[in-house]
Amino acid sequence: MRAPTDQELLDLAQRVASACRERGIRLGTAESCTGGLVGHVITEVPGSSDYFSGAVVTYANEMKIALADVPAAVLEAHGAVSAQVARAMADGARRRLGVDVAVAVTGVAGPEGGSAAKPVGLTYVAIADAAGDDVRRFVWDGDRTGNKRLSAAAALELVVERLTGPSS
Amino acid sequence: MRAPTDQELLDLAQRVASACRERGIRLGTAESCTGGLVGHVITEVPGSSDYFSGAVVTYANEMKIALADVPAAVLEAHGAVSAQVARAMADGARRRLGVDVAVAVTGVAGPEGGSAAKPVGLTYVAIADAAGDDVRRFVWDGDRTGNKRLSAAAALELVVERLTGPSS
Repeated sequence: MRAPTDQELLDLAQRVASACRERGIRLGTAESCTGGLVGHVITEVPGSSDYFSGAVVTYANEMKIALADVPAAVLEAHGAVSAQVARAMADGARRRLGVDVAVAVTGVAGPEGGSAAKPVGLTYVAIADAAGDDVRRFVWDGDRTGNKRLSAAAALELVVERLTGPSS
Repeated sequence: MRAPTDQELLDLAQRVASACRERGIRLGTAESCTGGLVGHVITEVPGSSDYFSGAVVTYANEMKIALADVPAAVLEAHGAVSAQVARAMADGARRRLGVDVAVAVTGVAGPEGGSAAKPVGLTYVAIADAAGDDVRRFVWDGDRTGNKRLSAAAALELVVERLTGPSS
């Protein structure tokens, strides 16, 4: 997969902006492998403070517990890069940030940290709102920077789809 | 001022990596106007999980209070873009993230939100460690993206200087 360009990420952030503004939604993020990239892209849009509250960047495992209330038992049982932890990050960040919708990303950006079971590029993106949560699994084939950008795009796309429906 | 290129930001992040690794320092960030860009740049370096714990992106004022323990009275008295709030963000994030060193950024990225007293581009970058805190004031003259990038570079430079001394 080709990593998105700056302009493509900005276009996605503009779609997030429209979706949030139309519905009066406040948004937050919980980011592991992206390190803050999702929040950075969201805040490239002027006036994003109208709908973006903030983010927790839970790079270390103990930050996932401390900042996003991921249960230690879930981390222990499934590992940091798992559907379960992605969902817990989204749910926890939604409560902590006091937002309507929170999107979370956890993955193996590479080039190190991969294993047979969890290869470099494996990424989970989860979203939580009042109706519940949802998670998607990806395996990117880019370099570290490319994988981070693909993950950020997937997170923004998930927000747009959750707010506007999958057919938009 | 010319905004730093991706490569220049990455070079700075590599200097941060070396400085943290040599001293066994764990690092965190508290970001307002940069929206997560500082954490993103830090985590462009492979292996950055060895020294980078995470970040709080306190875009909304209530997040500065909730995630970085900025006293409401300090926000009220000095405004979100002030030396006092930058210091409080760095101090609060250092405690919350349990890191040795935290760097904080708050500013007016633009194009809106400026005033005569606090023009677009006004930015405070603060750092906190066990010895105390320090803050610097800048007025960038770029567009929104450029101001964010200049702010991120200033934050990374402040980390390098605090760890290695100003003459390095």
